[in-house]
Amino acid sequence: MNLDSVVAELKFDAVGLIPTVAQEATTGEVLMVAYMNEDAVRETIETGFATYYSRSRKTLWRKGETSGNRQRLIGLYVNEYGDSLLLKVEQIGGAACHLGYKSCFHRQLMVGEWRVIAERVFDPDQVYGD
Amino acid sequence: MNLDSVVAELKFDAVGLIPTVAQEATTGEVLMVAYMNEDAVRETIETGFATYYSRSRKTLWRKGETSGNRQRLIGLYVNEYGDSLLLKVEQIGGAACHLGYKSCFHRQLMVGEWRVIAERVFDPDQVYGD
Repeated sequence: MNLDSVVAELKFDAVGLIPTVAQEATTGEVLMVAYMNEDAVRETIETGFATYYSRSRKTLWRKGETSGNRQRLIGLYVNEYGDSLLLKVEQIGGAACHLGYKSCFHRQLMVGEWRVIAERVFDPDQVYGD
Repeated sequence: MNLDSVVAELKFDAVGLIPTVAQEATTGEVLMVAYMNEDAVRETIETGFATYYSRSRKTLWRKGETSGNRQRLIGLYVNEYGDSLLLKVEQIGGAACHLGYKSCFHRQLMVGEWRVIAERVFDPDQVYGD
């Protein structure tokens, strides 16, 4: 595999990063969003485990290096613009989030009201009259 | 719902954006990664349909406004840092990608090349003209 040509099709942003979604391959659950630089992409493909770039530590971030919760690469996908990546992974240890949750997206916006979430198939006024 | 306090918990980046993953609610398929600014987040919550921020056009991007392939918001999730969002959506028209594919991640890395691994739901030439 020519890794250079694979990486050449990616569009890294102004600071050399590309947003990356990690998704559990078996369940489809979205685990996290992180960033890769070119070295992280190469290392992920070469090792078969997710390596990201830590914007806070400004260094390669070998996911799970401390916790053991590594992400085994199952499939790697790119969007039409080459400016975002999708990793399907096996999440070793079952948790991607450093807070102990399986997914980093463990908070959902609740709106505090009962909202109709379906569309009517028929209009009852028309069927039943009023 | 106090939208101000909801938005206040989000961390937008240096240019006021937050990366957002759109996922098909029923199948778990990841459809696309896009960006929202604060106005886009507010509009998405208020309307119940995904509005992003177009970095190329520098304006709000009401997904599906042209093609009709809107994204109905089913669930909105945030990660632990408040710096990325996950939208579970119903993808109207069945295709999120403007090239006619269901998902923008229709290319998978196979032994050294990005290969199309999806089939088009619609023909973009027919929908968008040329």
